Amino acid sequence: MSAFAALADWGTSSFRLWLVDGEGAVLGERRSSEGMTTAGEAEGGFAGVLERQLDALGVAGDLPVVACGMVGARQGWVEATYIDTPADPESLADGAVRVTDTGRAVFILPGVCQRAEGAFDVMRGEETQILGLEAGEGRRLACLPGTHSKWVVLEEDRLTGFSTFMTGDLYAAIAGHTILKHSVKPQDESFDVAVFQAAVRAAFARPAELSNRLFSIRAAGLLAQEEAQHPATTLSGLLIGLELAGAASRFGRLDETSVRLVAAGPLASRYRAAFDALDIAAHEEDGEAAVRRGLLAAARKILR
Amino acid sequence: MSAFAALADWGTSSFRLWLVDGEGAVLGERRSSEGMTTAGEAEGGFAGVLERQLDALGVAGDLPVVACGMVGARQGWVEATYIDTPADPESLADGAVRVTDTGRAVFILPGVCQRAEGAFDVMRGEETQILGLEAGEGRRLACLPGTHSKWVVLEEDRLTGFSTFMTGDLYAAIAGHTILKHSVKPQDESFDVAVFQAAVRAAFARPAELSNRLFSIRAAGLLAQEEAQHPATTLSGLLIGLELAGAASRFGRLDETSVRLVAAGPLASRYRAAFDALDIAAHEEDGEAAVRRGLLAAARKILR
Repeated sequence: MSAFAALADWGTSSFRLWLVDGEGAVLGERRSSEGMTTAGEAEGGFAGVLERQLDALGVAGDLPVVACGMVGARQGWVEATYIDTPADPESLADGAVRVTDTGRAVFILPGVCQRAEGAFDVMRGEETQILGLEAGEGRRLACLPGTHSKWVVLEEDRLTGFSTFMTGDLYAAIAGHTILKHSVKPQDESFDVAVFQAAVRAAFARPAELSNRLFSIRAAGLLAQEEAQHPATTLSGLLIGLELAGAASRFGRLDETSVRLVAAGPLASRYRAAFDALDIAAHEEDGEAAVRRGLLAAARKILR
Repeated sequence: MSAFAALADWGTSSFRLWLVDGEGAVLGERRSSEGMTTAGEAEGGFAGVLERQLDALGVAGDLPVVACGMVGARQGWVEATYIDTPADPESLADGAVRVTDTGRAVFILPGVCQRAEGAFDVMRGEETQILGLEAGEGRRLACLPGTHSKWVVLEEDRLTGFSTFMTGDLYAAIAGHTILKHSVKPQDESFDVAVFQAAVRAAFARPAELSNRLFSIRAAGLLAQEEAQHPATTLSGLLIGLELAGAASRFGRLDETSVRLVAAGPLASRYRAAFDALDIAAHEEDGEAAVRRGLLAAARKILR
């Protein structure tokens, strides 16, 4: 059982490393918070962080490494510029950039971009995860919720289109930096699924009214309405409802397919509740296994 | 030519005072930045601010004052609680609260609230301005753009419904506190009316896609697209387009009426450009004259 490569999912604020054999079986694993934003300042920079983590796994000096994520951004280790849609494991591998400031063979996968009037978009890291999802047939839709939620269309093994929705980013900005900062105090309230689902349905049905519905959270509080008891839950529901309305507007009816939901923990529960509210079928996929499969597929093409 | 009353439009960050005769002719005028947020901390508090401004106009100690705006909020001078829609000059006057910590007769007008499932809303100050707009017949729609834009329905001389859109508040939060802070630098760009109008149309046509369109501003910048040259203009256009879509969703087609636009300066120009982009007819009204007329109408009822 010998190591074939080390695979790294190296994001903005997290670092995950797996030592795998040629079949993808995991021989060792490391994770830390040395993401892109801190690794550059660490001792020895990105190479220093990587070598210390490999050393902790007892990895030989000549084992190649394949990485994806923000480590390949302009402000990362080495820039691996975006490849265009449609993208597949082959084009991802072709776009990989080899790092030159270390003796080890380290390859960084590119992000994917979409150049279309009115739909310019970029992703970095998610493409590797998406291309590592369990195989399927025909047109499939995947949802990767988060600060910048990605909705991605897969056709056979190609990533043909995608849209990013700033759901989590908007939540933080609105909760912290608008008039709603006086109302939204997540630490003071419990999550109420009925309130959440009502907000999802409201925003999905009438997305145009979003900014009025947001102000209404504040107004209900001033008027001491019962509806005012869950401002954070309502805000979350409205923004996720808007995201689902946007995905439907971009990709067609969501209730005629089964969406692959790539999420875990509380975020997965919340999106599942949103899907349930709108009768959208979804099944969860293990995001960590997916990114590892995507990295392995690229590594096989790069290192063959 | 003797003074009938002093009228004050006392908002969050501004104070305006007019000395008027019984017909509403302006005999004297003062304006300062002693709004609600600073007046409470000034020497003598709200009463001190008011007396110094009246003194500068040489006003006698027994002249009554009628004020509207945030001065009547919970955190203002004296709380004048909201009256319900429908509201008219009579009910505004009935809801006025007399200040007790000064020898002078000072009355503060209430705000207006709307208690309707899914449409809770409040205003404070705008109701007085709206009820002072030039008279008209039938159902009319007014737009008061700003941090919290108000869209108001008037039927004869009654304010029957309204919706607030957090357009300006959202602009500042998104431009300053999301990923777009790296792209949106208003000081570095000129206003491009064609780019603005295209963004207005895009958001109006597909409001569901708002949060994707927002991210697209960032993506276009990363991809160095030509569309990336006016991120602040685009952001403004998207949010105003969303507001207009919301107003249409709440109040019906906007192109079958003439909207009264209560704004001045650059904000009025921007909204007029947005209306033009969607073939919505609008005519501008003088907001300052309107609030003075609204205050005078209430003063006549209170002081008669």
